[in-house]
Amino acid sequence: MAAAFSCSVSFPFRYSRNGNRYRSRVDIKINASSSTRLHTLNEIAGAGKGSSPLAATTENRHIAEEQIRQKIPTQKQLVDSYRQGLITERGVGYRQTVVVRSYEVGPYKTATLESLLNLFQETALNHVWMSGLLSNGFGATHGMMRNNLIWVVSRMHVQVDHYPIWGEVLEFDTWVGASGKNGMRRDWLVRSQATGITYARATSTWVMMNEKTRRLSKMPEEVRDEISPWFIEKQAIKEGIPEKIVKLDENAKYVNSDLKPRRSDLDMNHHVNNVKYVRWMQETIPDKFLESHQLFGIVLEYRRECGSSDRVQSLCQPDEDEIQTNGVEQSLLKNMVLTSGMVEGNGYLGLLDTKTYGYTHLLQIKGKNRNEEIVRGRTRWRKKYSTLPYST
Amino acid sequence: MAAAFSCSVSFPFRYSRNGNRYRSRVDIKINASSSTRLHTLNEIAGAGKGSSPLAATTENRHIAEEQIRQKIPTQKQLVDSYRQGLITERGVGYRQTVVVRSYEVGPYKTATLESLLNLFQETALNHVWMSGLLSNGFGATHGMMRNNLIWVVSRMHVQVDHYPIWGEVLEFDTWVGASGKNGMRRDWLVRSQATGITYARATSTWVMMNEKTRRLSKMPEEVRDEISPWFIEKQAIKEGIPEKIVKLDENAKYVNSDLKPRRSDLDMNHHVNNVKYVRWMQETIPDKFLESHQLFGIVLEYRRECGSSDRVQSLCQPDEDEIQTNGVEQSLLKNMVLTSGMVEGNGYLGLLDTKTYGYTHLLQIKGKNRNEEIVRGRTRWRKKYSTLPYST
Repeated sequence: MAAAFSCSVSFPFRYSRNGNRYRSRVDIKINASSSTRLHTLNEIAGAGKGSSPLAATTENRHIAEEQIRQKIPTQKQLVDSYRQGLITERGVGYRQTVVVRSYEVGPYKTATLESLLNLFQETALNHVWMSGLLSNGFGATHGMMRNNLIWVVSRMHVQVDHYPIWGEVLEFDTWVGASGKNGMRRDWLVRSQATGITYARATSTWVMMNEKTRRLSKMPEEVRDEISPWFIEKQAIKEGIPEKIVKLDENAKYVNSDLKPRRSDLDMNHHVNNVKYVRWMQETIPDKFLESHQLFGIVLEYRRECGSSDRVQSLCQPDEDEIQTNGVEQSLLKNMVLTSGMVEGNGYLGLLDTKTYGYTHLLQIKGKNRNEEIVRGRTRWRKKYSTLPYST
Repeated sequence: MAAAFSCSVSFPFRYSRNGNRYRSRVDIKINASSSTRLHTLNEIAGAGKGSSPLAATTENRHIAEEQIRQKIPTQKQLVDSYRQGLITERGVGYRQTVVVRSYEVGPYKTATLESLLNLFQETALNHVWMSGLLSNGFGATHGMMRNNLIWVVSRMHVQVDHYPIWGEVLEFDTWVGASGKNGMRRDWLVRSQATGITYARATSTWVMMNEKTRRLSKMPEEVRDEISPWFIEKQAIKEGIPEKIVKLDENAKYVNSDLKPRRSDLDMNHHVNNVKYVRWMQETIPDKFLESHQLFGIVLEYRRECGSSDRVQSLCQPDEDEIQTNGVEQSLLKNMVLTSGMVEGNGYLGLLDTKTYGYTHLLQIKGKNRNEEIVRGRTRWRKKYSTLPYST
């Protein structure tokens, strides 16, 4: 049988330089059908040390293994085929092609806001990944790592014009810019790959925090030197002076107390990921409103991080004037519907296309003596015209 | 200055038909540098119909728009570059390359079980996507759609040998086979792309449910004709006679009552996605145990679907005999550590590699008169040897 002579051997390629170790796949295929000699992760981590695996310290072994498995680039890459990403904007921006996955959409097949926020985070990290600046932290550069610094988001503003649907191919563009002396701005633009139509845009501000003291930090010179060559001025959202978000108190119309972070809510920085905050905010709005409205804008101002043992309270308050306006419009609509003889609930509501509804939000940690703000937010909503996935 | 020629016009475009109204924005940007004519979603939906957009019915328009945005293939595809997928196994299997995303990992940078289950679902759907058989349902074929049938999972068995880490590139292989007369088996194999090492394997059984009556259905001939050419005999997990999962009652050691599905827990089939069940099961196990142990095996037997208004109770019970065994082994270990003089917590614990812990689970809907089972489960755990991400 011809296959009995098949013999394919690929040898490990290994080298060690400057204390860094790399290894690779060892496929040995000598068989009639196909048999593969698979190394265990420990064997790989121990390989190529030029000494017995037992002599390797546990830590070195772990670091070596992680390097092999993650393959974080140490130099700038222009293309990453696995991430479907490429460097744009004359060498400083990043674009990633993303397919909306089945578990990123809700019952109407449209991507959830949480999924979009997750993908903002993912593309931002991949941008740093491609830059060659990524240390082993959550988006931290080598200079930040040396100074025990991590990124924390201080503000996020997202606008969604169209929600993408399951299976749709999107292009996420992201880039960074200066924000004051010690901050960084990061923007995103999400387009339909098929049509070029912009679906969503976002801008955010980031500052540095000392990982140990958990206090905000100035941007060290060495970090500025790393990241400032990547700064550009382009803005995804043209913002004037941002609207001030009032601080709600316990008189807020809707209050959801005793929210408890779950194990699965913690991220690589060991705090509650900011995407989860949005879920808590949304869940405080009555179901009845959520069922018939769609969020098209959100602003978040982060004040304090939230740990796994904190108990969180979510407050929210609809805009008063708009509820009144809404009341007026409801009766206007009723008249119109009666006059025209059209059935309520059909496309006629399209006339009220520009009508929006606002909510103010606050998440706070319930303390013994006083409460501490985690995040203030504003959300903007408009009526859903249809339960179909492509409704805008 | 070139920009002087830039001219941006936007005007509303509206039409009304069958009592439905659409409006949309037409942005026309005539510019000296690059000019892009951006189509609105409605224009696109109307395009290519061979008739004026006004003549298209609303439903057709929606379907047309969705087709353009999703681009579900109507014929078998061998490669999909966006999904990074290809057909394998002599034309019937599917392989997808996946990068572990930042939000799919927990605080220790390892992918969560939920993320793996989500990716099983995603790759399964993409397999059907590539086959050309996918109708617009949640994995349903054209024949199933004609018979109002949807897929429901009846059993799932997952084994995780190694948890992938953030940024790691994985290969998911999936394929289907026969399961009795009316069911289908679907298997998965997850490998590290860099090393070829198998990280996880899974097998599942699926049956068909009538979307309207919510009752299980036989497999119609036309559906069998669609899917049976894709069946192969390969098995990811060699199973003997499956262990029977006992039904827990209210005497179970840990009980978590009044669990409430969240809006975000509903999937495209408008029921609670089975991945969420696993979260509820895990959250019923004490934190102390979860912190020091890692799941390496889970079996789920689904009995009934769970809707958004159901109140769910999660019960779980550790295996008694193993707790005792554990006590014995703990003292053995203590002796060994004392004897050898090695520090506790180092690699020496590797000697207890085979020690495992079992839990039995039940999720049920709390009814007025009686409770109804949603799913029974068994989980298997082993000690974590380190908090480092690559610990096995």
